Amino acid sequence: MAAFAIVLAGGAGTRFWPASRAAQPKQLLPLVGSESLLAATVRRVATLAPPDRVLVATGAHLLEATRAALPDVPAENFLAEPVPRNTAPAIAWATSEIARRDPSALCMVLPSDHFIANEDEFRACAGRALDGASRGFLTTLGIRPTRPETGFGYVETGAEIAAGLFEVRRFVEKPTRDVAEGYLASGKFLWNAGMFFYRAATMIEALGEHLPDVLRAVGGPNARAAFASLPSVSIDYAVMEKAKRVAVVPGDFGWNDLGSWESAWELATKDGDGNVLPAASVAVDARGNLVWDRGARKRTYALVGVSDLVIVETDDAVLVVPRERAQDVRLVVERLRAAGSKCV
Amino acid sequence: MAAFAIVLAGGAGTRFWPASRAAQPKQLLPLVGSESLLAATVRRVATLAPPDRVLVATGAHLLEATRAALPDVPAENFLAEPVPRNTAPAIAWATSEIARRDPSALCMVLPSDHFIANEDEFRACAGRALDGASRGFLTTLGIRPTRPETGFGYVETGAEIAAGLFEVRRFVEKPTRDVAEGYLASGKFLWNAGMFFYRAATMIEALGEHLPDVLRAVGGPNARAAFASLPSVSIDYAVMEKAKRVAVVPGDFGWNDLGSWESAWELATKDGDGNVLPAASVAVDARGNLVWDRGARKRTYALVGVSDLVIVETDDAVLVVPRERAQDVRLVVERLRAAGSKCV
Repeated sequence: MAAFAIVLAGGAGTRFWPASRAAQPKQLLPLVGSESLLAATVRRVATLAPPDRVLVATGAHLLEATRAALPDVPAENFLAEPVPRNTAPAIAWATSEIARRDPSALCMVLPSDHFIANEDEFRACAGRALDGASRGFLTTLGIRPTRPETGFGYVETGAEIAAGLFEVRRFVEKPTRDVAEGYLASGKFLWNAGMFFYRAATMIEALGEHLPDVLRAVGGPNARAAFASLPSVSIDYAVMEKAKRVAVVPGDFGWNDLGSWESAWELATKDGDGNVLPAASVAVDARGNLVWDRGARKRTYALVGVSDLVIVETDDAVLVVPRERAQDVRLVVERLRAAGSKCV
Repeated sequence: MAAFAIVLAGGAGTRFWPASRAAQPKQLLPLVGSESLLAATVRRVATLAPPDRVLVATGAHLLEATRAALPDVPAENFLAEPVPRNTAPAIAWATSEIARRDPSALCMVLPSDHFIANEDEFRACAGRALDGASRGFLTTLGIRPTRPETGFGYVETGAEIAAGLFEVRRFVEKPTRDVAEGYLASGKFLWNAGMFFYRAATMIEALGEHLPDVLRAVGGPNARAAFASLPSVSIDYAVMEKAKRVAVVPGDFGWNDLGSWESAWELATKDGDGNVLPAASVAVDARGNLVWDRGARKRTYALVGVSDLVIVETDDAVLVVPRERAQDVRLVVERLRAAGSKCV
């Protein structure tokens, strides 16, 4: 059975402002190294699903930039959503398209804005998840938690079905700190990273049961036109939490959701003082700083006596924030939007 | 007697890097407000010495930029030094030129890279100093000290000659901290701000006594060609400290030598949080910061959770330093020079 990838590339976050914008969201940026997160997502699975078997769900306003980032993916493999409707309608649309092309296909749903350090281990896990999919399970990859994170949903594992493949006991929403600590201690809970593996036919059947109107709308020739009328709902909530045969493959492959500039610093290659700086920079008594500037001008950055700062430079905006306050970038974006600024 | 101004505009400091460069020194920058320090220097004395009676001593490599900054000063009034030789040769050259044009002229020697807040009071003091000059004194303006500064030379006052005009007991070099505190407490010591007022004939006579070779070299038609062979010596050391009839006018007119970016912040108009930011900026929990960017791009600066920083942006270089470490910019310039960087 051939595997197809469904890459979800419609995101429009504000956490990486000013590098990320409405017209240039996070997945289009080279936040770690020089490759965009989107391009890395597709390259990473090329041995499982080559570019002609990659479908990319994105927003209509991002279509051109998204195609440009993935020159090896055929033009007809991009699904342009006229409006964002969360993951369920996008996955239903792409899965219907894949089922039309190959009724026996296996599918991998992959977010396009995460980072994975150990790609071999990721592919090994994905292979196990595709095996689970071929057995008829809606299968997810669960990340082994390393901290009592309250910003993610969790998956509770049940009995082992096969080597490295477990029943899912339940999906749970973002927990409180106390609950998250219990999850971490139990060893039975995994982070839900939004990656799903299934037979196209299995998902079509589940959609038919849980989201029949959506399935009908996206299955016909007028999917794009119908899209705006669909409910905005996640595949987790609409299908995964309700379906019967759901499995999970625990994984430990250096996954990072890149939630803020702090994460970008964590993942970057640092100099001996923990700085991440452009080539021609000078640091004097400066430690733990990240300067992000992908501009063509190759400027010299001089940092003197400052530590643990994030400095982001774009053509029309500059951000300076301590790493530990990187989450507060959203406050800036809110203020700029309220002021009618053009640089958000 | 007509007054001429001799504006010393050959400086080439590194304290305002990256805004200041070899080809664009401090006096050519609008460090306070939108007017360059050089233009402000000339404008400030226009009622005493209009632009056609302003001579500007600058470096040959700065001639074009210096002329452009002073469009009202006639082209023949710029004296281009082929090499820097400190203040005495420059002052001797300009004074000889003025004496040639008007043997009875009064002269004011003015550094071009200082800031003066109270211009009316400055002109009143300059008027008193010109009066001292007309009485035959080599007259300086002395700034009433506000702190035990160890970075300046001092002038000790003696008996009062006329209202607001005092004999100079002695000039003293930069003192130690203890000595500076004694100076401040005594009330008799003033900062030497490098401003001198004299009859052209008085200075010519003093130069003839103390620097005869220099006077001879700059007094002839080949002054420029002879310049490189002259000693590099200050007018303070060569003449003022040795001359007999020397006077001082104490002044208190908001003088600031703009010694670092910290001074630029001190003098700038601040918002309610002590920030000095471009118009479209956003500050969240950010206080006491200076952003200096005179670029045409009018970028939006977002400062979140950072305080007392100096951020300077130019086309090819960026500086980030705490205000209190602004003096350490020289370390950056040294490193860049050692590395053969083009942006110093």
